[in-house]
Amino acid sequence: MAAIASPDDMIRRRIDTGRISLNVREMGSGPLMLFFHGITANSATLAPLAVRFSDRFTTVAVDQRGHGLSDKPDSGYEAADFAEDIASLIRTLDRGAAVLVGHSLGSRNSVTAAALYPELVRSVVAIDFTPYIEKEVFDALEARVNAGDQLFENTESVCEYLAARYPNIPAPAIRIRAESGYHNVEGGLRPLASPSAMAQTAAGLRADLTQAYRDLRRPALLVRGGESKLVSADALAKTSRLRPDLPVVVVPGADHYVNEVSPDITFQAITNFIDA
Amino acid sequence: MAAIASPDDMIRRRIDTGRISLNVREMGSGPLMLFFHGITANSATLAPLAVRFSDRFTTVAVDQRGHGLSDKPDSGYEAADFAEDIASLIRTLDRGAAVLVGHSLGSRNSVTAAALYPELVRSVVAIDFTPYIEKEVFDALEARVNAGDQLFENTESVCEYLAARYPNIPAPAIRIRAESGYHNVEGGLRPLASPSAMAQTAAGLRADLTQAYRDLRRPALLVRGGESKLVSADALAKTSRLRPDLPVVVVPGADHYVNEVSPDITFQAITNFIDA
Repeated sequence: MAAIASPDDMIRRRIDTGRISLNVREMGSGPLMLFFHGITANSATLAPLAVRFSDRFTTVAVDQRGHGLSDKPDSGYEAADFAEDIASLIRTLDRGAAVLVGHSLGSRNSVTAAALYPELVRSVVAIDFTPYIEKEVFDALEARVNAGDQLFENTESVCEYLAARYPNIPAPAIRIRAESGYHNVEGGLRPLASPSAMAQTAAGLRADLTQAYRDLRRPALLVRGGESKLVSADALAKTSRLRPDLPVVVVPGADHYVNEVSPDITFQAITNFIDA
Repeated sequence: MAAIASPDDMIRRRIDTGRISLNVREMGSGPLMLFFHGITANSATLAPLAVRFSDRFTTVAVDQRGHGLSDKPDSGYEAADFAEDIASLIRTLDRGAAVLVGHSLGSRNSVTAAALYPELVRSVVAIDFTPYIEKEVFDALEARVNAGDQLFENTESVCEYLAARYPNIPAPAIRIRAESGYHNVEGGLRPLASPSAMAQTAAGLRADLTQAYRDLRRPALLVRGGESKLVSADALAKTSRLRPDLPVVVVPGADHYVNEVSPDITFQAITNFIDA
């Protein structure tokens, strides 16, 4: 495997959509391809993937509301809120309909945006988030998310914490998370993501997603980690029964963090999807 | 479900590629989308699907060698022979790289052509044929194929025979097979497909297909009937381990004859794939 690209290869800028101010990392030219991270993460986690598509797309990795350096309103962390941010961003960028690539929370938001604003979306790559995720899976996720709000001594201790939390993510990708997702506070480092926003976002992930999948009229590729603890084989099977026309890629050996654990297969799967 | 389109909506013509003379059904304009049927069938079985794409593609459904009204040489029924026919046809049509849609034998041939002639192929929809098909499945297929060489009293008796052989294919699609695949001979109707070509083609299907899948560098969508007796769940799983980056659609309730049994889901799945 080639060394992963650095998030710093991308240009950071702030985009005011009129609705919200979002921090993004941008690179390349051509049609729009937007990247939306999972809960507690930020634009840097998808940057290595975005960089690989920047030779033929305008790639924009986004800090979603409540995360990274983007606005963190007190409330408004349901699927429709994130989806409207996506719509307002695509309108502001004004480069036509976008390919949306989302992981986890970003997958939920991308599918919701495509269902609500089909004219703004060319297609969706929905990585490891589907309808029918079990209640106990959300319970575990919510506990994990809320436990992340800690004070850390330094970046090394953040790396240790994240490596224990995400045991299959390779060290370079763990470091990207550590270096991008924390800021200096009195006594050490704390997450950039707002704890209140994370709690609301985690709770909002439980909302029924079947209607958005039913309504979806844009092409979507469903990607699941073969060892994912978030999307069970059963949840994916139910989703395929709901939408048997949607193509599926199951990445062998990958857990929930598919694009960080298996970057080459993820890149190739997306390429196969968008080049057809 | 809408009434299926008639194969007679397409224009029939003969194309001499310099290598072989092929009978095709053609409709529409735009980039090339070629359709390749299963063993013992002909261009008519995929015509209802082709017609639905003809508003934006030049759709060409092909009688493959040994089948329908195309040339039936005495020998040359291996994967490479069919694939070279495909390459020569795309070159003769001279409209750029083609999307290949193949069912069964046509799926094997399309993937082989894409692996051998990537510059001529935009992408492949590979319906219900994969590597790792079990020996006993080929034994049963070969017995079925060779039993098809019968004299029938009339089209109704052909329909009865085909309805028993393909119990899940709806009556209108059975009628298409009956009306397109037989010709008048002394004493009744016989298959247009050459018995010797069918025997050689059936034997050739057993050849190892893993190298073609390994070599494949064009996007491909794998489609399997959820109840297929030809591609087992195990054969598909092994194929996904060989090429984890290739998207998969499993059509619930469909047997091997996916596009005839579930035309709407097949159409939507291909649309999702090529529109991404």
